[in-house]
Amino acid sequence: MKPFMDERFLLTTPTAERLFAACKDAPIFDWHCHLSPKEIYENKTPRDITELWLGGDHYKWRAMRGCGVPEEYITGNASPYEKFKKWAACMPKFIGNPLYHWTHLELQRYFGITETLSEKTADAIWQKANAMIAAGGFTPRELIEKSNVFCVCTTDDPADTLEYHALIAADDSFRVQVRPAFRPDKALAITAPTFLPWLRQLEAVCGKEIRSFAALKEALLERIVFFEKMGCRATDHAFNPVPFKRMTDAETEVVFTKALAGIPLSKGEAEGYQTELLRFLAAAYKKRGWAMELHMGAMRNNNRRMFEALGPDTGYDSIADDQMAHKLSRLLDSLDYEGNLPKTILFTLNPKDNYVLGAMLGNFQSDEAASKIQFGTAWWFNDNIDGMRQQIRAFANLGVLANFIGMITDSRSFLSYPRHEYFRRILCEYIGNLVENGEYPADFDVLEAAVRDIAFNNAKKYFGI
Amino acid sequence: MKPFMDERFLLTTPTAERLFAACKDAPIFDWHCHLSPKEIYENKTPRDITELWLGGDHYKWRAMRGCGVPEEYITGNASPYEKFKKWAACMPKFIGNPLYHWTHLELQRYFGITETLSEKTADAIWQKANAMIAAGGFTPRELIEKSNVFCVCTTDDPADTLEYHALIAADDSFRVQVRPAFRPDKALAITAPTFLPWLRQLEAVCGKEIRSFAALKEALLERIVFFEKMGCRATDHAFNPVPFKRMTDAETEVVFTKALAGIPLSKGEAEGYQTELLRFLAAAYKKRGWAMELHMGAMRNNNRRMFEALGPDTGYDSIADDQMAHKLSRLLDSLDYEGNLPKTILFTLNPKDNYVLGAMLGNFQSDEAASKIQFGTAWWFNDNIDGMRQQIRAFANLGVLANFIGMITDSRSFLSYPRHEYFRRILCEYIGNLVENGEYPADFDVLEAAVRDIAFNNAKKYFGI
Amino acid sequence: MKPFMDERFLLTTPTAERLFAACKDAPIFDWHCHLSPKEIYENKTPRDITELWLGGDHYKWRAMRGCGVPEEYITGNASPYEKFKKWAACMPKFIGNPLYHWTHLELQRYFGITETLSEKTADAIWQKANAMIAAGGFTPRELIEKSNVFCVCTTDDPADTLEYHALIAADDSFRVQVRPAFRPDKALAITAPTFLPWLRQLEAVCGKEIRSFAALKEALLERIVFFEKMGCRATDHAFNPVPFKRMTDAETEVVFTKALAGIPLSKGEAEGYQTELLRFLAAAYKKRGWAMELHMGAMRNNNRRMFEALGPDTGYDSIADDQMAHKLSRLLDSLDYEGNLPKTILFTLNPKDNYVLGAMLGNFQSDEAASKIQFGTAWWFNDNIDGMRQQIRAFANLGVLANFIGMITDSRSFLSYPRHEYFRRILCEYIGNLVENGEYPADFDVLEAAVRDIAFNNAKKYFGI
Repeated sequence: MKPFMDERFLLTTPTAERLFAACKDAPIFDWHCHLSPKEIYENKTPRDITELWLGGDHYKWRAMRGCGVPEEYITGNASPYEKFKKWAACMPKFIGNPLYHWTHLELQRYFGITETLSEKTADAIWQKANAMIAAGGFTPRELIEKSNVFCVCTTDDPADTLEYHALIAADDSFRVQVRPAFRPDKALAITAPTFLPWLRQLEAVCGKEIRSFAALKEALLERIVFFEKMGCRATDHAFNPVPFKRMTDAETEVVFTKALAGIPLSKGEAEGYQTELLRFLAAAYKKRGWAMELHMGAMRNNNRRMFEALGPDTGYDSIADDQMAHKLSRLLDSLDYEGNLPKTILFTLNPKDNYVLGAMLGNFQSDEAASKIQFGTAWWFNDNIDGMRQQIRAFANLGVLANFIGMITDSRSFLSYPRHEYFRRILCEYIGNLVENGEYPADFDVLEAAVRDIAFNNAKKYFGI
Repeated sequence: MKPFMDERFLLTTPTAERLFAACKDAPIFDWHCHLSPKEIYENKTPRDITELWLGGDHYKWRAMRGCGVPEEYITGNASPYEKFKKWAACMPKFIGNPLYHWTHLELQRYFGITETLSEKTADAIWQKANAMIAAGGFTPRELIEKSNVFCVCTTDDPADTLEYHALIAADDSFRVQVRPAFRPDKALAITAPTFLPWLRQLEAVCGKEIRSFAALKEALLERIVFFEKMGCRATDHAFNPVPFKRMTDAETEVVFTKALAGIPLSKGEAEGYQTELLRFLAAAYKKRGWAMELHMGAMRNNNRRMFEALGPDTGYDSIADDQMAHKLSRLLDSLDYEGNLPKTILFTLNPKDNYVLGAMLGNFQSDEAASKIQFGTAWWFNDNIDGMRQQIRAFANLGVLANFIGMITDSRSFLSYPRHEYFRRILCEYIGNLVENGEYPADFDVLEAAVRDIAFNNAKKYFGI
Repeated sequence: MKPFMDERFLLTTPTAERLFAACKDAPIFDWHCHLSPKEIYENKTPRDITELWLGGDHYKWRAMRGCGVPEEYITGNASPYEKFKKWAACMPKFIGNPLYHWTHLELQRYFGITETLSEKTADAIWQKANAMIAAGGFTPRELIEKSNVFCVCTTDDPADTLEYHALIAADDSFRVQVRPAFRPDKALAITAPTFLPWLRQLEAVCGKEIRSFAALKEALLERIVFFEKMGCRATDHAFNPVPFKRMTDAETEVVFTKALAGIPLSKGEAEGYQTELLRFLAAAYKKRGWAMELHMGAMRNNNRRMFEALGPDTGYDSIADDQMAHKLSRLLDSLDYEGNLPKTILFTLNPKDNYVLGAMLGNFQSDEAASKIQFGTAWWFNDNIDGMRQQIRAFANLGVLANFIGMITDSRSFLSYPRHEYFRRILCEYIGNLVENGEYPADFDVLEAAVRDIAFNNAKKYFGI
């Protein structure tokens, strides 16, 4: 029996251990996350481990609800201590759940605590962790630096002023790169109630009226130029499913005008608008060598009652099961055909699509980059041992694993970097098994380089940073 | 090499063995099955092992057809001995098939026969098994008691009089609880040829005319009240896919009136009716603390030729591949929003949906129960080692495994209880591996309690029995 | 650590080794491939290993593109030596990819080269392999005979004259059977630009005008009779998804007349035509005891830019994600109901459908054959260790594995027969594990016969050759 989560965690062979040794100290390039640049800039010490751990982490909230914990102890008025105790009491129930591993990786790596968390140990851990936090070293920047992070890409709206990015960049005391990523979801969500208010924000930031689709494109291009100046290299789009319905410029203008006037759009009108705007944006990304991330398959805000109480990103999202192959293929093809396909990273939230995406890559590769089209790492609900293994295996079977740009945290938490370690262990265990089973030669020059590349170098090169 | 199916069957580590030892003697709560209350009441000794084994088990029929056995030896006029011989001759071909394991578990546990079944051993086993049956101990009640069953929930139509449930309950000599479960599929199947005949049955059992949707709801509520008096705690619905299309009461009345008049309904009309009736029923379940089972993804009676010859439930069912995420989400949300969402158990026949369901749970949990929304165990075609492992892993990754309400037989056979043992072994092997691999601490107090809870206690508590 | 790809490759237990020993020398019946009968007849010595390996193998082209290799070195004007070097340089990047294994199996089995291919070893292997090719033994027929092939079924259009099949059959010096397989995809693709040109080809080969659907059916039946004379036993259909929409003869005639006149057809019209033509063909297959292969889920020619440059079958195909369960069920049922369902082999390119197909089999089995309906082996993008394991496990769980008709290469390359060895190893490892784990008895008479049957005998019997 292996000890619980020791240095050989998830590694079962000497080869896996050797490969992990070769990549464990590689820096982290967290090219997709939801960290707040404001929080990084302000760099406050958290009040206690409850704020640090449970303050905004809807993964944990969701898991507590699955244990029947009343909302009072999750997002409600219970004290930080009470909330922590409830979380601790749930912990032993998470048998086989990634939260069990993340929690203990974070306790080990940031607090040096190797005890397991439960109702019994909660008080001792509460005191020890809070004392350490109070003693210092737990501000956002300290946590990021401690985690050997080279660069993070945040997720930012086109209308965002990026003022905190500018402030961080101007502050020489913090050496980690904090770059914006361009996420124009609100520009594409033409039928959402957020559309017109968002448009007014964009008008404000651009200092001019946007009364046509052409003007919108012009405004977004201005923002792209601005984001580029601010160091942007990545973009992000969430779709479910990906749209594809071609429209002429004139048709798109009609749709946009209707939207401005508050006239409801048909599904086809919205899809046409989204397709044409996305095509315009992709061409602009391509020109700048930016990468386009497509996150597909999330079904958000499933619980209206709780949405009304708590808003979005509070633990009520889910996995959709729409078809995606045909439209995704046609979208990528329409861009490729015109020379406008940027580097693209395909993510799916539904693991049934792993093979669809793994195969899709191969249709649009080119000599612009080693694996210009990438299959994004196991995402969100798949960010567990099984999910990562499956994504890695699908990528290996269908693509070129050595070119994989690897892990991201996709997280709102400054404690989530050990998920890169989690990924590296799983990757090294997988490759280690290939070697141990005689399925790949024991060529450690090649393999040690490969795991370091996947851990860090490939992404750095891919994003051109 | 491990011996074939010995006491360590499916257990490969000391931890797995220890966990299995902790739960193997837990009682069985078979909260979803298709046993006949009439047969339980009448409690007849079967004529021979063919009647006991092959009398109504369409899993076996189907497997025999896959071996090219003529129908005469399956459901036809061949003698019981000939049928048994054919079954025995097929057996060695079922390499890796769960029927191989179920068959030998049943031979071992009920007959003490450890030989493997094949054409060669068929005669000896035929004689030994039949002699044992003749010597007694093989009536339905004896088999149920021998299997350490605490309670079974049968599957019953709202129009059922439940007379056999009453007779069983009145018989003090049988201590196992036999409770009805409310399955109003025929009430929802408004476009099926069975609808109007079924409605007449319901009218008969209620003693009044049902000429409106309001009257139908009233009649069904009467039956719910009656089922409640008879000990019902569970309901069951089969959908493919789940309906969701809201209608007003007036619109639903129009649809119902058309159906009464034999006027064909559009797909939308049927779906609206189904949605509103299901919403009504769910609210009634919620009020009583009943659990609502949703079985999704079965595609029944695929072979018309054989349907005309043999009727339903004869081995011609299959796995559908419809989308389910959106409508299921909206259905559960529409109930939750109004405070009408009962405890709900989501089953899928298509394993591609494991992650869709595993994620769906988390959107609607509450403090009413530990994991109020459950992911039903690997069902029917998935009721094999791989299927169970996948369902358990998906549940563990996405939900709270320690709260899982576990296994059901879903069976028509009085010999099927060893499937609970099969499940418990697979569960303990899974958790054992987590511990042996250092992925969960070796905390046996927690884990032994967890496997006993999953084996029995969670379900007992969940159904409130 | 096991040595890289030695004689125990993919075999980890003594049982697996023993089973593999029992089937490794079984002949190969490659009942579905894309070999060129012309090339077999002409039997030319390849110029070098680049021609032999990279000449037409779009799997390899695609993988090179994933490494960022410029097209010049793939399908372009670079020299054979330069192309080989590029391929060699990519090789170490294919960690976990089946091409890594296929490549080294081919080097080992045909060239006796056990070194691994990389940029470093490229020159030595280039020279050694080319010297061996020049020394003889590498013509198509020599490679086929060396590979212990009993029979290959090529893939042929109904309008094909099969002249090379006739020439090969007439040549007594070649003892391997080369049979045509009937693939009328162009007859069904009524909306494709290829339809009318193809129709003219069919008219030419039949020597008469085809001005009606009835005439088309008559012409195709003539070709079926001709193919039968030429030894055909198998047919092939590619669908995505499978069509099912019944039409009367009169309606189908109208659709056909519109197509002749170049009038665009609606989706429903095309589907009706396809359904009725397929039903007609299936009945003709059934009459002759032919097997009908249905290949579902491919999405072809995704990249228009490269399609215009290189044409089809150049590495731009992908995996679709359409629903298939309902229409496939209704199609098979409509045939079965009328006694017209031939032996049928169901292939899916999307592994999410493994359980849909595995379950579908059971709806239409009969005593005409042991597993009349088959689940086709892991195909194309699934033709890797994981994909084969999953297909085998799904077949075992849902069907009768001992009746499986096993592996095909589906290949254009005369070096691809080691994929049968790959499959046999994976099969024997799977069954070996069942035995080693106590999940199947160590009955080697049964199991050695089973693996030999799956490797060869079942297919021979199934196709009636």
